[in-house]
Amino acid sequence: MKNNIRITLEYDGSRYDGWQKQGNTDNTIQGKLENVLFRMSGEEIEVHGSGRTDAGVHARGQVANFHINAEICPDGEAAREYLNRYLPDDIRVLSAKIVPERFHSRLSAISKTYGYYVETGDKKNVFERKYVYGCGKKLDVKAMRQAAEFLIGEHDFKSFCANRRMKKSTVRRIDEIRIVEHGTKLEFLYTGNGFLYNMVRILTGTLLEVGSGTRRPEKMKEIIAAKNRDMAGRTAPPEGLFLLHVGYEGERETV
Amino acid sequence: MKNNIRITLEYDGSRYDGWQKQGNTDNTIQGKLENVLFRMSGEEIEVHGSGRTDAGVHARGQVANFHINAEICPDGEAAREYLNRYLPDDIRVLSAKIVPERFHSRLSAISKTYGYYVETGDKKNVFERKYVYGCGKKLDVKAMRQAAEFLIGEHDFKSFCANRRMKKSTVRRIDEIRIVEHGTKLEFLYTGNGFLYNMVRILTGTLLEVGSGTRRPEKMKEIIAAKNRDMAGRTAPPEGLFLLHVGYEGERETV
Repeated sequence: MKNNIRITLEYDGSRYDGWQKQGNTDNTIQGKLENVLFRMSGEEIEVHGSGRTDAGVHARGQVANFHINAEICPDGEAAREYLNRYLPDDIRVLSAKIVPERFHSRLSAISKTYGYYVETGDKKNVFERKYVYGCGKKLDVKAMRQAAEFLIGEHDFKSFCANRRMKKSTVRRIDEIRIVEHGTKLEFLYTGNGFLYNMVRILTGTLLEVGSGTRRPEKMKEIIAAKNRDMAGRTAPPEGLFLLHVGYEGERETV
Repeated sequence: MKNNIRITLEYDGSRYDGWQKQGNTDNTIQGKLENVLFRMSGEEIEVHGSGRTDAGVHARGQVANFHINAEICPDGEAAREYLNRYLPDDIRVLSAKIVPERFHSRLSAISKTYGYYVETGDKKNVFERKYVYGCGKKLDVKAMRQAAEFLIGEHDFKSFCANRRMKKSTVRRIDEIRIVEHGTKLEFLYTGNGFLYNMVRILTGTLLEVGSGTRRPEKMKEIIAAKNRDMAGRTAPPEGLFLLHVGYEGERETV
């Protein structure tokens, strides 16, 4: 018999090639998890993530699940302990539990929240160099909030998708974009039903161009309508991005 | 003509062999600074730090000074800009200015403040793994504060010095030890006229043993009187330690 184990984990993505396993290299979060689960069970176990994160992107609340022999892993705590003992110290399982067979961390997810962190002051703290994007200039927060309003709701976000040959639907729904000021630091919080490849970083890069005055807020309407990646702004760098929360049916939002 | 330049800098000590240059390797903060100054001036320039920091120890307010050709470096801003352009991104000059010829960052210093950070909860955040010591147990803060009281004032701190063959005086004055609670995190703030080799880490390690109940606070008196390193507690690990501030005559304390 197998148990379906759901884990919530955090990781510092700085030294990894992102979430998804790539060929023979295992310098990925998924690869590290699968290595430890092979050690634990003697079997090749596939770990399903709620979604990929790019190289250098971090997570405070990534969710993943996997099926494992119930005798070897009788409960969530056994998985959490074993994984935390053998995972590198920049990946940590926060919680683990047995979930129904049908649960799939990606297919069952109904919402995601990402945070993007920007330092607008000229001094970027050395301790935050891997966790905050230092844009180094004052930004017009009011203009960025106006621009963000145009993004709320269900739209075809093809202009904000790095994969130009995306065959599947590029329609997504953004429920909320909050821009919170902490001194000279800005926190961009995005919640929606799903995000395309690089979408949060392109949204942020475009909002930053509004904030620095090179685009007007209303321009957002045109960018969405164009369905053309070239119309949107630059892709903001990975280090400022954190996957904060993945929401599932019947669960209270905690971010 | 030479200018005497005083710099205040911060660094993430995680990947360095400490402040002080060692033989041929230059994997030290001092070595990195001297390399850039050689590039700037074409001359071997010695950088004097206010004190050494060990491998893995960080600084938010280290002070150093050096003498450099006044034509090449006419003011502090020239030094700050050049250094920040060529230093690795985990070392950053916060400010730089011309100071009188007689200023020496170590000999002129009259006080130092260190911070030591401890996580007492069982979950150590992956983003803080290089900046906080995860002791993983609840501590009796009141007992640690009582113990700290015995350390205040001028004492021979030989029991708290890692260098057992220290020939110079091991008498130092501690002006203040504050233990501040931030949720499950503890901040130990030490201010004094100077600290011996590993002294802050041994003081912290000893206080943690009081906090976990393995030593009584009054034991501190005996430990000091013994003048024997074996009587004190373990050396707390380097990653929790930050040099926060170096004080000089006539300057307002800012930490």
